[in-house]
Amino acid sequence: MWKRDLQECNQRIAPFIHKTPVLTSRLINQVAGAEVYFKCENFQRMGAYKIRGATFAILRLSDKQRAGGVVTHSSGNFAQALSLAARSLGINAYIVMPETAPKVKKDAVLQYGGKITECEPTLSARNAMAQKIQRDKGATFIHPSNDMDVIIGQGTVGMELLKEQPGLQHIFSPVGGGGLIAGTALAAHYFGKNCRVIGGEPYEADDAFRSLQSGKIEGNETTNTIADGLKTVLGDKNFPIIREYADRIIRVTEADIVQAMRLIWERMKIIAEPSAAVALAAALREKETFAGKKIGIIISGGNVDLSQLPF
Amino acid sequence: MWKRDLQECNQRIAPFIHKTPVLTSRLINQVAGAEVYFKCENFQRMGAYKIRGATFAILRLSDKQRAGGVVTHSSGNFAQALSLAARSLGINAYIVMPETAPKVKKDAVLQYGGKITECEPTLSARNAMAQKIQRDKGATFIHPSNDMDVIIGQGTVGMELLKEQPGLQHIFSPVGGGGLIAGTALAAHYFGKNCRVIGGEPYEADDAFRSLQSGKIEGNETTNTIADGLKTVLGDKNFPIIREYADRIIRVTEADIVQAMRLIWERMKIIAEPSAAVALAAALREKETFAGKKIGIIISGGNVDLSQLPF
Repeated sequence: MWKRDLQECNQRIAPFIHKTPVLTSRLINQVAGAEVYFKCENFQRMGAYKIRGATFAILRLSDKQRAGGVVTHSSGNFAQALSLAARSLGINAYIVMPETAPKVKKDAVLQYGGKITECEPTLSARNAMAQKIQRDKGATFIHPSNDMDVIIGQGTVGMELLKEQPGLQHIFSPVGGGGLIAGTALAAHYFGKNCRVIGGEPYEADDAFRSLQSGKIEGNETTNTIADGLKTVLGDKNFPIIREYADRIIRVTEADIVQAMRLIWERMKIIAEPSAAVALAAALREKETFAGKKIGIIISGGNVDLSQLPF
Repeated sequence: MWKRDLQECNQRIAPFIHKTPVLTSRLINQVAGAEVYFKCENFQRMGAYKIRGATFAILRLSDKQRAGGVVTHSSGNFAQALSLAARSLGINAYIVMPETAPKVKKDAVLQYGGKITECEPTLSARNAMAQKIQRDKGATFIHPSNDMDVIIGQGTVGMELLKEQPGLQHIFSPVGGGGLIAGTALAAHYFGKNCRVIGGEPYEADDAFRSLQSGKIEGNETTNTIADGLKTVLGDKNFPIIREYADRIIRVTEADIVQAMRLIWERMKIIAEPSAAVALAAALREKETFAGKKIGIIISGGNVDLSQLPF
């Protein structure tokens, strides 16, 4: 059903994204006891896979819709991604951000040409502001993770990884709002050979783990995690896909995350953000299960504040 | 004269080293106002170009010499490089290190199979101990930078870079003991098209700059630099080559080094050690000179202590 969408997306977004490498590390293979392939979206444009979904969502709009621009609420990578994708495609991007968002995040959005509107740091203020912009500007709302075009866009990460390594038995993805793991699960379903997708999620923000257990979308009880991209919760578009096509979710501690991040930095000499290290952390947490297997790990992004490192 | 040595070396060390990528960054091109190509030796085996020279120096030994092993004094990347190269080639490596060397450096050498002998932290104690090991074990001494085979080995970095980007007008190399810049200068001379090699050196350890000015090998007046790989001085083998084949040396401040390092980490999402950032720092310090040019930058290594970052 979504196979053709993934194929279409893969072709249409190609001119607007980088072809990211798949890297390996002899030493990490030893540590994991497995054959590990890292899909390096930290080298993607604006430093994260989110540019894929943002670009595809805009490409799917009609000319009339494009004229009004796009709007989203995010203070993370999706805000930057939508700003950059909009600029590449010559349209306006309106970003609703809480007035409490750090200056460094606002600057990043401005650098990519996004137009920031600040609001009070509440869910209702955020939604009201996004609706106001839709009315006033005729902008189309694009959700960072609970949007079918966005999910398909993020699915191209897994497609590319499977194209290079068709024999992968598992792919590990971090789980935040659910867009990446849903897209990855679809990619594995249509393009893998019995490839099972596993999510990594912090214990400190384990809404997705509990949602899969209860069968309905759960909120977070805490969000006290260094993986700041994974504090959001699943949505009604991606949750059914994750339930049907993803295998399961492995939870990791904060210490697991820092350790995995250090391993990537020290051994691969590349910069992965904490949220990106969660996928490797999950694979290592149950390394006995995956011993001897051929596994893919999505390094989802590399946007870190070097003044705030956990080392 | 050394052209054939470089070609021979390039072939013979190939099975023992990684083929490192040449990366670019749109944003760094904008900052530099130039077309910049980074040769990423931070992705090299053991995290630095030094494995090249160490490997070639051992490959050049006779069977009888190999039987006695090799010995060097270093507490930095060359100690690890010689240990790993020796292990790959099935011989012993004896590493003389001051007893004051940090545990993390000793552990790295042990991890690669090097045999450490500690000595008092003086030049004379170090040399005496290296001589004793030569006598007792029949080991051959390999200097980290002032050895013609080592210089040729390091020259393959520039050869590979020029093979991928034959039109480079300048290549920037950090300058410590002088092995890398001497090798790079030879590579540019034999394989470049009017390509000029420029060294980057900290003001805080500017022996090479002053040596080129005075025409004789000068010592360091201070070594108070974050670029801990660049505290050593030139030698009688590499100095004449640098004088004849390198263009000049640009000195950089400690702030320049940290800024260049941050730029590489944040924009390229890769880990470069402070000494490696010195080459980019030099190019940026005189960016007006290199505006519009096509330049190569050697990222010499990526071995950092994540607990001791300057950010």
